[in-house]
Amino acid sequence: MARIRMTVEYDGSRYHGFQIQHNANTIQAELENGIKRLTGEEASIICAGRTDSGVHALGQVIAFDTHSSIPEDKWHFALNSFLPADIQIIESSECSPFFNPRYDALSKTYHYIIYRQNKGSIFYRNYALHNTDSLNIVAMQTACKLLEGRHNFKSFCASGSSVKTFERSVFRCNLIEEKPFLRLEIQADGFLYNMIRIIMGTLLEIGRGSYCPETIKEIIAAQDRSRAGPTAPPQGLYLMAVEY
Amino acid sequence: MARIRMTVEYDGSRYHGFQIQHNANTIQAELENGIKRLTGEEASIICAGRTDSGVHALGQVIAFDTHSSIPEDKWHFALNSFLPADIQIIESSECSPFFNPRYDALSKTYHYIIYRQNKGSIFYRNYALHNTDSLNIVAMQTACKLLEGRHNFKSFCASGSSVKTFERSVFRCNLIEEKPFLRLEIQADGFLYNMIRIIMGTLLEIGRGSYCPETIKEIIAAQDRSRAGPTAPPQGLYLMAVEY
Repeated sequence: MARIRMTVEYDGSRYHGFQIQHNANTIQAELENGIKRLTGEEASIICAGRTDSGVHALGQVIAFDTHSSIPEDKWHFALNSFLPADIQIIESSECSPFFNPRYDALSKTYHYIIYRQNKGSIFYRNYALHNTDSLNIVAMQTACKLLEGRHNFKSFCASGSSVKTFERSVFRCNLIEEKPFLRLEIQADGFLYNMIRIIMGTLLEIGRGSYCPETIKEIIAAQDRSRAGPTAPPQGLYLMAVEY
Repeated sequence: MARIRMTVEYDGSRYHGFQIQHNANTIQAELENGIKRLTGEEASIICAGRTDSGVHALGQVIAFDTHSSIPEDKWHFALNSFLPADIQIIESSECSPFFNPRYDALSKTYHYIIYRQNKGSIFYRNYALHNTDSLNIVAMQTACKLLEGRHNFKSFCASGSSVKTFERSVFRCNLIEEKPFLRLEIQADGFLYNMIRIIMGTLLEIGRGSYCPETIKEIIAAQDRSRAGPTAPPQGLYLMAVEY
């Protein structure tokens, strides 16, 4: 038996997120179904980050065990022909039988994309947040820097979420303007439920001038979801890479 | 009664082209249905260019007659709320009752987009041709220049097409590399059936070295569809603008 590790891209538009669910179309179900059709085996896939409905990935990492004799570097070619056009394996290799894509990850990098003009916006309806508000980008960038570091991010976690600790280390939080796009790049040792989407919603409030960048410090200190901004929609969010 | 002119964007992925057809989802049917729901009127829409199944538009121009009292510049707001998310009116105005978007057009500009890397290609499956072949871009650009001017383009017209004349004037034919994209920009006084997609297929053959750029002259002179390259797929094609 061997454990195979793969990097996966998917367009999350048609799916109810990564994790398998009864009576819903999910990335995990498509992958396990593809493996079954390819090898006849019932694989159990572990992923690095369980993305939500509508969220995309360019660098999701998965692992599973197999008895198949398919060479480790041929797996992605073989499996791609059993997957729908909106899911694609981009690399495959054999890994340690102890490798766990989720717990072994040192950090993950997500991008959130905003499309800032009307022309062509229909083409991004599933791939970016469409927002044409006048925004103070510098204020948003100042706020990004205040999010970096180790903090209790409870204010940026969907309420009702049960985790052991709300402390996370944000290694990098940059907002980059490449007209007509605005891109948030965020790397952390872990993310709470809806954390990036709530950060994005809060940054947009700051960009519109609802409060000043320094308010981020108070929002963090409050440890209260109601102090942060609204949750930005899922379609702008991309899991870009997992660092090990 | 007034004639209203509109500029329309659409993502053609879900549609069987612009023109209304029995038992098929078309852009024209969605637009006429939207007008009916908005005004109660049965409008007959004329468009500048009848795009095929899967082809997109950022600057399609349409016109229709109405008895509605909706102000000319409010039409696009009003109608957008009765249209699906992948069709959007971007401007509207009253025009001459004699304006015909098709016959009054001096020229039309189309773009054809090629996506040239594997990473992220699933996101462009409906929006570009995915091609990672090694291509001689300079040879393709040389061929583009040989297509400019007034020529008989019968070799670049789908066979069986019945038109009065195969002569068209190509005002501009440029191939622009903006990695990871390659974009063909072509403006002409008119296009034959599948003309741009056959031009694109022929340019790709030249890029791969199947024949030299000067062969374009022989292909034009032959007036024979079988001499040109294959028809490139529809999803890379965009009607960008109509010039009046």
